Amino acid sequence: MKILVINSGSSSLKFQVIDSETERVLAKGLCERIGIDGRFTYKTDTGVSLKEPVPMKDHKQAVHTILDTLSDPDKGVIGEFSEIDVVGHRLVHGGEKFTGSVVISEEVIHAMTECNDLAPLHNPANLVGVEACRELMPDTLMVGVFDTAFNQTMEPKAFLYGLPYKYYERHKIRRYGFHGISHKYVSRRAAQFMGQDPGRVKTIVCHLGNGASICAVKYGQVVDNSMGFTPLEGLVMGTRCGDVDAGALEYLAKKEDLDIKQIVAILNQESGVLGISKNFSSDFRELKDAEIKYHEKATLAREIFAYRVAKYVGSYAAAMNGVDNIVFTAGIGENDSDIREEICSYLEYLGITIDEVKNREQAEAVKISDGTSRVNVLVIKTNEELEIAREAAAVAEGLV
Amino acid sequence: MKILVINSGSSSLKFQVIDSETERVLAKGLCERIGIDGRFTYKTDTGVSLKEPVPMKDHKQAVHTILDTLSDPDKGVIGEFSEIDVVGHRLVHGGEKFTGSVVISEEVIHAMTECNDLAPLHNPANLVGVEACRELMPDTLMVGVFDTAFNQTMEPKAFLYGLPYKYYERHKIRRYGFHGISHKYVSRRAAQFMGQDPGRVKTIVCHLGNGASICAVKYGQVVDNSMGFTPLEGLVMGTRCGDVDAGALEYLAKKEDLDIKQIVAILNQESGVLGISKNFSSDFRELKDAEIKYHEKATLAREIFAYRVAKYVGSYAAAMNGVDNIVFTAGIGENDSDIREEICSYLEYLGITIDEVKNREQAEAVKISDGTSRVNVLVIKTNEELEIAREAAAVAEGLV
Repeated sequence: MKILVINSGSSSLKFQVIDSETERVLAKGLCERIGIDGRFTYKTDTGVSLKEPVPMKDHKQAVHTILDTLSDPDKGVIGEFSEIDVVGHRLVHGGEKFTGSVVISEEVIHAMTECNDLAPLHNPANLVGVEACRELMPDTLMVGVFDTAFNQTMEPKAFLYGLPYKYYERHKIRRYGFHGISHKYVSRRAAQFMGQDPGRVKTIVCHLGNGASICAVKYGQVVDNSMGFTPLEGLVMGTRCGDVDAGALEYLAKKEDLDIKQIVAILNQESGVLGISKNFSSDFRELKDAEIKYHEKATLAREIFAYRVAKYVGSYAAAMNGVDNIVFTAGIGENDSDIREEICSYLEYLGITIDEVKNREQAEAVKISDGTSRVNVLVIKTNEELEIAREAAAVAEGLV
Repeated sequence: MKILVINSGSSSLKFQVIDSETERVLAKGLCERIGIDGRFTYKTDTGVSLKEPVPMKDHKQAVHTILDTLSDPDKGVIGEFSEIDVVGHRLVHGGEKFTGSVVISEEVIHAMTECNDLAPLHNPANLVGVEACRELMPDTLMVGVFDTAFNQTMEPKAFLYGLPYKYYERHKIRRYGFHGISHKYVSRRAAQFMGQDPGRVKTIVCHLGNGASICAVKYGQVVDNSMGFTPLEGLVMGTRCGDVDAGALEYLAKKEDLDIKQIVAILNQESGVLGISKNFSSDFRELKDAEIKYHEKATLAREIFAYRVAKYVGSYAAAMNGVDNIVFTAGIGENDSDIREEICSYLEYLGITIDEVKNREQAEAVKISDGTSRVNVLVIKTNEELEIAREAAAVAEGLV
């Protein structure tokens, strides 16, 4: 099957066309600045490469541009629209309703709309992409793949906060966890790479990007996830604070005369390693090479980041009563060997020893722990689009 | 030396007289409902026992009552006021200024007053007790023992939040950690009980009471503490929520039309196991024996509590790269063998095995892990008053 994978944001739309049999990416690209001036980037596995301004007044025009280009006799990879068998949509928040991928029906759209409140920045933007595709490809199967679904196996002991229970009943305030598509892909790829049965291993996935989360996956099911009701909780991230004392927020609000909305905006946008480094940077490479004036705080920001990751790994080893695989993925996890080394230096008590040469290798998947290590430590490139394509194909096949 | 230990709250005052050489408690008691109707409880090691209404219009009258009783020919344990060599005051918050116990001078009172903002419920009440004692015993040495001081060895990587650095500079918003007096006493007692050098062991103290915190003590110094800027952070407690996503609070504020002050009041007073159990109880014994109607949520509350403790233990094992002793203390930690067993069931991966018979023993100190366990698990009765007396005596001796 040919799967079109769509990741729709408020003013952007990322896409890939994946052949589900070979898992090859036939084409991929990005519509940016939708509704502003429009910019289109496109690349195929046959060597076509475009990067040009294309006016796109809305997401429908963006999808139109994509489909026209994909079916263009010179630049395209398909003959006509109908050769797309399934469209797989990345959807951020499925609340408690969606525990797996689903065919997008009117009913599903309605249920998703009900989750908009839980992810006001992402869900409505995702739905705009869905609607645009449905209009232009009314006969094509649409599958929704949720970033929260994989995390829905968490038990109440992990997903409930210590809040009055009525707030869970009334408003569904609980831990949802995010990055589920990546955590699922990476935890399985790790088992496959190690020749293990994913149903028999305990894995901790460290998805360390600008947004960062850690996930405990026991026998294929999520036990815990460091992101919570929103993606603000957990690790210190690029600009997000992660875990913080609620009592400190009240104090800060009083001292700086801010309300909770303003506080949470600061926690999301001005905090994390950016805030710790005194606004020097949210980019881990820049932090590493920080000029002398910022050097101390930039180094501290990286140190805090690594320390928090190590504490979560320790915490999730307890949550699962052990760990077989620890996997690093996403921008920082895949590329920052120093951070990996620093994190693993806390974990020698688990019997972890790192092969320094392996840790500097670049590959789609590499085992960086040495032969004597009691826990496998891996670096695996995440591939959310491939996971979405697989899910979409599986749903489509299930219908046959 | 005879040490009078004072723990002054807003309308209560607890006291003990301890002989620092023998470490015997000569007398102890409690003034309650100060400024209301007044109630006095008193007991000596010679068998005197009182429990009676005594009008006490302020803390000065309460201290007067204590001193009169202590020096009473029939009921007392001293001849006159001057036989008290030192008064040791429990002080909740010493900010970053106080990293150890100090002689209370005008300067110290001034510096403590500056910390009032950090602990508005506790510090002013502590100071009222100090002032009352200074007035009535002007020639007696007063020593301040801070609940935050032991935690002041935390490094910036542990005490800084992922907030903009300026808030630490401007308002000293950081992790302080609490229960330091208890964590210090218990971590040392554990090493002593095991015949270890406290400077060479890694200890995790689980102070589990109505307020609960976990502390990582490496080679005698605090590395991390689950309580934060305030005692709200960390574990799920009797009525406090512990860790929670700040993003969830913004959502809750919007949905329930509350401001941050109201939210934090709910998080402190209506949350924790009380909130999870739908207001059934904040008492762990009651939760265990909950009637059928509340049974499910009461059990869930205990389960969440135990799970969070286990995760913090795992996290601090990583923070210290290993652990030698895990110690349970305070009301729940000392008395709830089921909770201890549940917590330890997560920790088998650390090589922990529990002796079920030992786990049911009641003693001042008991090792509940069995002979094969790679980590010592202990139950130790905390004794904050004795720790305060020791600190006060040490400060006094230092002056000679």
